[in-house]
Amino acid sequence: MTEMLENRPGGPRTPDPRLLAECLRACAECAQVCNACADACLAEEMVADLADCIRIDLDCAGICATTSAVLSRTGTTGPATASLLHACIAACAACAEECQQHASMHQHCRICAEACRRCLNACEKLLLSLG
Amino acid sequence: MTEMLENRPGGPRTPDPRLLAECLRACAECAQVCNACADACLAEEMVADLADCIRIDLDCAGICATTSAVLSRTGTTGPATASLLHACIAACAACAEECQQHASMHQHCRICAEACRRCLNACEKLLLSLG
Amino acid sequence: MTEMLENRPGGPRTPDPRLLAECLRACAECAQVCNACADACLAEEMVADLADCIRIDLDCAGICATTSAVLSRTGTTGPATASLLHACIAACAACAEECQQHASMHQHCRICAEACRRCLNACEKLLLSLG
Amino acid sequence: MTEMLENRPGGPRTPDPRLLAECLRACAECAQVCNACADACLAEEMVADLADCIRIDLDCAGICATTSAVLSRTGTTGPATASLLHACIAACAACAEECQQHASMHQHCRICAEACRRCLNACEKLLLSLG
Repeated sequence: MTEMLENRPGGPRTPDPRLLAECLRACAECAQVCNACADACLAEEMVADLADCIRIDLDCAGICATTSAVLSRTGTTGPATASLLHACIAACAACAEECQQHASMHQHCRICAEACRRCLNACEKLLLSLG
Repeated sequence: MTEMLENRPGGPRTPDPRLLAECLRACAECAQVCNACADACLAEEMVADLADCIRIDLDCAGICATTSAVLSRTGTTGPATASLLHACIAACAACAEECQQHASMHQHCRICAEACRRCLNACEKLLLSLG
Repeated sequence: MTEMLENRPGGPRTPDPRLLAECLRACAECAQVCNACADACLAEEMVADLADCIRIDLDCAGICATTSAVLSRTGTTGPATASLLHACIAACAACAEECQQHASMHQHCRICAEACRRCLNACEKLLLSLG
Repeated sequence: MTEMLENRPGGPRTPDPRLLAECLRACAECAQVCNACADACLAEEMVADLADCIRIDLDCAGICATTSAVLSRTGTTGPATASLLHACIAACAACAEECQQHASMHQHCRICAEACRRCLNACEKLLLSLG
């Protein structure tokens, strides 16, 4: 994907292409990890206690996947990019907080909280670079 | 989908279920219409003049589809719902404005601008109902 | 969306536009209903018994949403359309079967099984029209 | 994501977890690269000649993203997984073929054709492992 960003006719669609590449990587990873965490929660005996965690995982996965699609197509030039990054940050912050509460009991929640924090940070840095 | 919202165990996930149902309908329609408008733009002779319109169509389609998925699952109770509705409003406003500029030349852009305005209004009403 | 299909420059992208319109409607509805059923299952006391139902709901929701996006953009002319319709039929058949088993206990599963059968039928009719 | 797959309660959801991890990586990359190629095509002067390429890019991006979501959640155990992998293979094959035709003129099409072939291969290997 890095090679792709470097070969765009007309140049990259963002002030700092490295931040865009990092955000794309983090969004794609977070979408997968959140979906996997939802499935892992469903495989736990205490699934009833994890119902909200599953919902938050799924919403975060969907929002990260869409952020990935929009950023990979229009970079940070789209008219809804900034507000979509805000939504992605809100989803990742909520998911990181929820999963962190179960992190000592469930490895998948610990891993998911980490992926959400990485994605949150990457989105915030990208958003800051837009000025 | 209305029947589904009325049969949720524990009750609806939003203060005003009619506004949620209306928003779900508008998001699903807008996602399809924006995708169809992108394809129709690609079929125009003057496609080079419509490149930005196509990009905005596609971003709007993706954001509306994700808003539809999140709202149909977690109603308006999710921690990222409000910011996702803001992103959907921004995407619909931009797409309505862009398509309106081509509305007199292209029927598909006129229809798309109307669907975007309906979706924008439905999202704003739902957001207002959250207080 | 019907108005959109009728106004495409170059004409509709499928032999029978009514079947395409019907399939688009069924896919969009099924995606939302399956997501809502997953959430409703998570709200049941016996959620542990519904873990597979939730997974099947979510897969079906995602596949229906993508089928809706692809069909609304490229009609039935795309090189992957037929195999995507087959995947959508497989997902809807599995979800209808799973939800039907819980239909007498959970209204949301009964409604979901019905939406899946409608979507399955609409996909099959559209696929048949392609010859 | 590899760490996530190794920590699933009840074990991995597929016969060969390395093939699943490889397929997840390839699908996520291909989804982003196809979206970026669609945008790059829209930035070319000869965009009218690339209309079909853009459509095929977008369909491939959507199908790869959904395959990524389904595989990250239910591994290869879902009832629609095999047919979804077939759809992903069809989409990647068509996109690789289309983009290869423009590969000598457009770097982004060359890169996209390569990503599609990697994804196609990863999906085929995963499908074969299911027996």
